[in-house]
Amino acid sequence: MKSPALRSSQVNRTSSLIDFGIGQPGFDLLPLDLMRQSAEVRFAEGDTELLNYGYEQGDGRFRQALADFLSAEYASPVGPEQLMVTAGASQALTLICTLFTQPGDTVFVEEPSYFLALRILREDFRLNAVPIPSDENGLRMDALEIALAQQQPVFVYTIPAFQNPTGHTLSAQRREELVALAHKHNFTIVADEVYQLLHYNATQAALPPAPLAARTESGRVLSIGSFSKILAPGLRLGWIQAAPEVVQRFVTCGLVDSGGGLNHFTSNLVRVALEKGSQGEYLAGLREIYRRRIDVMDAALHRHLGGMARWQKPDGGYFFWLEMDEGIDTAALLSAAHTAGVGFLPGVRCSSVGGLGNCLRLSFAHFGEAEIEEGVARLGRVLSEE
Amino acid sequence: MKSPALRSSQVNRTSSLIDFGIGQPGFDLLPLDLMRQSAEVRFAEGDTELLNYGYEQGDGRFRQALADFLSAEYASPVGPEQLMVTAGASQALTLICTLFTQPGDTVFVEEPSYFLALRILREDFRLNAVPIPSDENGLRMDALEIALAQQQPVFVYTIPAFQNPTGHTLSAQRREELVALAHKHNFTIVADEVYQLLHYNATQAALPPAPLAARTESGRVLSIGSFSKILAPGLRLGWIQAAPEVVQRFVTCGLVDSGGGLNHFTSNLVRVALEKGSQGEYLAGLREIYRRRIDVMDAALHRHLGGMARWQKPDGGYFFWLEMDEGIDTAALLSAAHTAGVGFLPGVRCSSVGGLGNCLRLSFAHFGEAEIEEGVARLGRVLSEE
Repeated sequence: MKSPALRSSQVNRTSSLIDFGIGQPGFDLLPLDLMRQSAEVRFAEGDTELLNYGYEQGDGRFRQALADFLSAEYASPVGPEQLMVTAGASQALTLICTLFTQPGDTVFVEEPSYFLALRILREDFRLNAVPIPSDENGLRMDALEIALAQQQPVFVYTIPAFQNPTGHTLSAQRREELVALAHKHNFTIVADEVYQLLHYNATQAALPPAPLAARTESGRVLSIGSFSKILAPGLRLGWIQAAPEVVQRFVTCGLVDSGGGLNHFTSNLVRVALEKGSQGEYLAGLREIYRRRIDVMDAALHRHLGGMARWQKPDGGYFFWLEMDEGIDTAALLSAAHTAGVGFLPGVRCSSVGGLGNCLRLSFAHFGEAEIEEGVARLGRVLSEE
Repeated sequence: MKSPALRSSQVNRTSSLIDFGIGQPGFDLLPLDLMRQSAEVRFAEGDTELLNYGYEQGDGRFRQALADFLSAEYASPVGPEQLMVTAGASQALTLICTLFTQPGDTVFVEEPSYFLALRILREDFRLNAVPIPSDENGLRMDALEIALAQQQPVFVYTIPAFQNPTGHTLSAQRREELVALAHKHNFTIVADEVYQLLHYNATQAALPPAPLAARTESGRVLSIGSFSKILAPGLRLGWIQAAPEVVQRFVTCGLVDSGGGLNHFTSNLVRVALEKGSQGEYLAGLREIYRRRIDVMDAALHRHLGGMARWQKPDGGYFFWLEMDEGIDTAALLSAAHTAGVGFLPGVRCSSVGGLGNCLRLSFAHFGEAEIEEGVARLGRVLSEE
């Protein structure tokens, strides 16, 4: 989820660059005390099990704590037998590709999609990633049906809630249709649901529909989750939620059999944060912070980019997606923007077909309210000079 | 490195079963205080960087500390630019397979070899793993040359020091020949060197030759290392050592670009243990413990299995490899052994060709001296009843 221009460890907070291309939480938001306290509690228990090889599916007590947390957050029951612990969402996607695909296989992706997932699919696994159009209600089912008439994908990779990069959410009706199509056409749905819990508007209408994770009993859904956005990315802790019989396919592979649980030590510490409720409290605090940032960014965009761009104010996730006039080439604008002290992710980076050149993605996760106001003002000046 | 019969979290220490099939350290050996103290020091530094996405190649300060540690241990300079941090040795092998192989590709493996590596290669990645005979000096170069005349492998997977399962070490001369053959026949050497530092006999003649890691400048060697056996398996922390230009191939892949450093948080804690010298002290203590266990197991084997089996007393690693008369089928013996309260890994599990049915592997890493004596006595009774 990082900027292609500025790698995380190279981000210089004293720099004057306000890079909205950085899709990661601000350093000041990271829960150092929470993790220190969780570690203290776990170490004080005095057993060495957290240092041993883990159980292949992931530590049982951790999976139970995660299942309880997700059951409450999803308002839908999740059982520990449905969960497989991974070393982050990207590693989960990698594990899925390793076990279920061969080079040259076809998979479907949203257009646009998460640019680094596209790299995992196309470059790491040499898959034929076919783009399917999306709109403000997510992946378009009419377009999916047309594509399915022509090609058989191993899976459809979708980011159904507060999508990266658009912020759009797949509607409840389309979720129904997607699962039905998966049955009819015999494909798997790989749902990257890492933004599902990042909803900031408590009104019922603004909440995303139930996650595709709630449909795993179909045997057609693999839901990917992660602590990267609800706790801390450096933990490299995530999960796959799937039907128990599908989970067993992961558990018994050579990698997992050899190494044991994929992030055993860290999951033992995070388990304490789940059980004590500090994960839930931290997430509640994040929601407040991000909700305010969305308001600030939306107001700043109206003030500085009004008439120059179109966007929808998101109800969650990390991103604003801006569409400019067709003539604008946002990739070409980037160096002028950097000179002016602001950065963004050009839309073309998120496209599978070299399109969306007139779009750009802004993340509100990394910078505080004052910097968001200032950065958007800089962006407005760059665009008005075009 | 685990027993196929007993998964780690299911190991019941109150059980009377002494399962020498368990290739993992005893729970009492795991360094809980060391890790607690390292965590306290790192958290007390007060910066949140350990919770952020990591630098793709692995945290710079961790890689420097690891390079310093390895330079001293290998008695050969290692630079941080040669190191790529991974989530354990198995994940390192998986990453190598993902980036460098396609299903159906040929790789060469030692006969016998690490049984779970065989599963990763054959099942997870559907590679054609061709066995090459080995002897007490490791992989046989004459056999390798014959195989190379017939087939082109992408890589040769070898465990050069204190091999799993045989305990044998590739001789210095064969290491030279192997690197020369890699150049001549254009293949990569994937050296699983996780036992390199586990030498327990301080006399110069008993030390393994310099690791293949010292030959990475050839561009032909990928050396896999891990903290699983020198610190704790649950950390899932390992590394690949390779020429800097080869390391860059890993660093720039989609998985690593998306997730950042592969085990950032944990590496931040372990860095403290490296810098403070507690990793080195802990390893020195382990060597003493394992050296005594080897003496105990060797004496017990002489006492209880003399005349029934042949073995070499190892100078390092985790394993004794026992060869029985041709008529003995160790896999068939296992249930009688379990009834008698002792376990082992049947040799056939380590064979690529269904051979070595008269051999078995005993690990001395998991049980203490009294249990080793008792377990070997039980094994002697089982074998003498045959």
